[in-house]
Amino acid sequence: MKKILLIGAGRSTSSLVQYLLFNAENENWFITIADQTKDLASEAVGDHKLAKAIAFDVNNTEERERLVDEHDLIISMLPAHMHMSVARDCIKYKKHMATASYVSEEMKALNNEAKTAGIVIMNEIGVDPGIDHLSAMRVIDGIKDKGGDLKAFETFTGGLVAPECDNNPWNYKFTWNPRNVVLAGQGVCKFIQNNKYKYLPYHKLFRRTEIIDIEGYGKFEGYANRDSLQYREIYGLENIPTMFRGTLRKPGFCKAWHYFVKLGLTDDTYVMEDSENMTNREFINSFLPYNQNDSVELKFKHYFNIRQDDIEMYEKFVWLGIFEETKIGLKNATPAQILQHILEQKWTLEEDDKDMIVMWHRFRYVINGEDKEIHSSMVVKGDDQKFTAMAKTVGLPLAISVKMILNGTIATPGVHVPIIKEIYNPILDELENYGINFNEKEVTPTFY
Amino acid sequence: MKKILLIGAGRSTSSLVQYLLFNAENENWFITIADQTKDLASEAVGDHKLAKAIAFDVNNTEERERLVDEHDLIISMLPAHMHMSVARDCIKYKKHMATASYVSEEMKALNNEAKTAGIVIMNEIGVDPGIDHLSAMRVIDGIKDKGGDLKAFETFTGGLVAPECDNNPWNYKFTWNPRNVVLAGQGVCKFIQNNKYKYLPYHKLFRRTEIIDIEGYGKFEGYANRDSLQYREIYGLENIPTMFRGTLRKPGFCKAWHYFVKLGLTDDTYVMEDSENMTNREFINSFLPYNQNDSVELKFKHYFNIRQDDIEMYEKFVWLGIFEETKIGLKNATPAQILQHILEQKWTLEEDDKDMIVMWHRFRYVINGEDKEIHSSMVVKGDDQKFTAMAKTVGLPLAISVKMILNGTIATPGVHVPIIKEIYNPILDELENYGINFNEKEVTPTFY
Repeated sequence: MKKILLIGAGRSTSSLVQYLLFNAENENWFITIADQTKDLASEAVGDHKLAKAIAFDVNNTEERERLVDEHDLIISMLPAHMHMSVARDCIKYKKHMATASYVSEEMKALNNEAKTAGIVIMNEIGVDPGIDHLSAMRVIDGIKDKGGDLKAFETFTGGLVAPECDNNPWNYKFTWNPRNVVLAGQGVCKFIQNNKYKYLPYHKLFRRTEIIDIEGYGKFEGYANRDSLQYREIYGLENIPTMFRGTLRKPGFCKAWHYFVKLGLTDDTYVMEDSENMTNREFINSFLPYNQNDSVELKFKHYFNIRQDDIEMYEKFVWLGIFEETKIGLKNATPAQILQHILEQKWTLEEDDKDMIVMWHRFRYVINGEDKEIHSSMVVKGDDQKFTAMAKTVGLPLAISVKMILNGTIATPGVHVPIIKEIYNPILDELENYGINFNEKEVTPTFY
Repeated sequence: MKKILLIGAGRSTSSLVQYLLFNAENENWFITIADQTKDLASEAVGDHKLAKAIAFDVNNTEERERLVDEHDLIISMLPAHMHMSVARDCIKYKKHMATASYVSEEMKALNNEAKTAGIVIMNEIGVDPGIDHLSAMRVIDGIKDKGGDLKAFETFTGGLVAPECDNNPWNYKFTWNPRNVVLAGQGVCKFIQNNKYKYLPYHKLFRRTEIIDIEGYGKFEGYANRDSLQYREIYGLENIPTMFRGTLRKPGFCKAWHYFVKLGLTDDTYVMEDSENMTNREFINSFLPYNQNDSVELKFKHYFNIRQDDIEMYEKFVWLGIFEETKIGLKNATPAQILQHILEQKWTLEEDDKDMIVMWHRFRYVINGEDKEIHSSMVVKGDDQKFTAMAKTVGLPLAISVKMILNGTIATPGVHVPIIKEIYNPILDELENYGINFNEKEVTPTFY
């Protein structure tokens, strides 16, 4: 019997837990679910015979080491910065490990030790990072196998609200950590386009977007992620002339969000004077030029040159309540914290709302002197507030990789991200059973 | 005989040294000038009988303590972050100290120890900070003394090139640390306007400027300094409705500099790919959207909506050589370092060029129900490349304050900035002998 330790039983683990429990008997697994408090873990376990729940403090080294030693594979769903202590225990006790997080430099540095210990440490096996790697590498390898020369790879992912629950003028609700959404993109974005390195500063990020059309789901817009360059090496595309990674929103979101950036509302580096007693209206007014005759609304419109008939744009801001005299009530808050607070009143999913994960890749390549282009897209909707699209797309590839490590399909020891055929093919195949599949099609090549 | 130790004999100390040496005999001073290498110090001393030069390593604690102990007053012209070790020695050996730098929180925290030691630690007694405090406090106290209620205080200072040497389309040359000029204003600017706190993000800083007219010198434009709020308390203006501190340039500079900010050229947080082999033209192109048909010039014009007949604006960029295929040759450089490198080819003072310091204050107040407004301005030009306006305005108030500390006019122990009558009046009076004087005038109040 193989023993699996899952650390962290939060919201995003529902599909992961469901998969593990459902397959436990067949695969001969016993699953321990550990969380800070036993409640969450017990709820996850239910009355399953091949699983148990425990309360667990990850900072208790002795207990952590003992638990790692008692299991064959550890799944860490902890916040990313907490994976390292678990990883070091896994090396010490020669146990496999899997996480859905970005592989850190620190984690990469454990590669030789993991090899020596004979263990697999699998990372980036959720969604963005995860399913994006699997699905992109399948197409990239396919193009290379038939002798194609890849000229451009662009990839976008977005966590959005499902169209049937999309009932606000931003066409957006928080389906993931709101703080990360508010701070997204700060710093510089780097990418390469036709062999030219391009750098996009944050205050321009939401104005240089790309429009993407996904059959059956309409138009989306994509803005750049911070570093599009590092995956060239990982994907074996060192010399690709164009490489771009981005995030998807519904059209109109970025232009409006850009106004928040321009005003300085997403700044998290300083605390505002007397934020506790400020109202939404005063908050916005703090970033607008002084004018004793104009209302905050008029100054706002004037600042951004919003005309009277730009109703769709202006309505977004009115609907958020930013001009209202609603007291904020946050002590010593940064602009970003206040903005998040205002957005959370409006962008929180309602009880029956479903989320949606959208992914889209574009590959341009040349074969026998001919330009070719492939689009590949995936849309996954949540079933409900528990089995969200996010929980499914993060949890299922992770769970399947755990199965593959334990049954020896993934056997090469070391610190990995899932980019080889032997990993991505079986995972992508199995994901189709859960309605997670890619629509790949050849299209007429785009001209630049 | 009083013994003065001057630490640091760099370019900006010429007027300070001249004052100290000239007054040494009358005042019964002996002056030790210490610098990293003896050359600079010896050059400063010349053949003066009441002075000597020494080589000195400020990080050699034993030597530093011995030197401090041997003198009555220490002038630190070290970089600001190096004042603290000298200040601690001054407390230990009960010696006075003077600097032209902003008083740090760490320095302020020494106030009680300085009092106990019975020593004066005078800070911010150069120019911006320094002469601005002296001249502003004289007017502010004058208004208060006659019963006026101060409504607004705005103050601007700029280090510029003298009009007779102003021969480039930016009307600007580096007269001070180029790196500080390139990075100026990063972060958020805070000020208060008619009792409303206002926050201005960096990417908008150079577009919200104020035009200022100084009789005999024409128009200038001012952009906001980072923190205009802290001086409310120091100046005793806790409840003033409007307070604004800024930096002066000639009109047109800020709009053009704003383009650099918008492109992201002043970012100092990341290193560019292969910066060593990049040309000026490639540098600019890295920040412009890709377009295979348009030249870098055309993309630049298009990005900023510069029309064919905006010659004055466009000429600034052409003149800087940013579109040229000049190799940059800086390894692992940030955008800000590369921009500085390009600017230094063009904005460096020529041998016969003179600099100029411009300062301008506006005070609005109400007295007997009547609105009043006072403008106060100072323009100082350098004599040559040695006795620059910067050296005079930094060095002379500092030197005069040293005299006042040593002769007991400034006697209250503690950590100080020069904001009281007993300090600012004699210093401002004596500065007039050196051509540093303020033109104060009542004007018709401005409407907002």
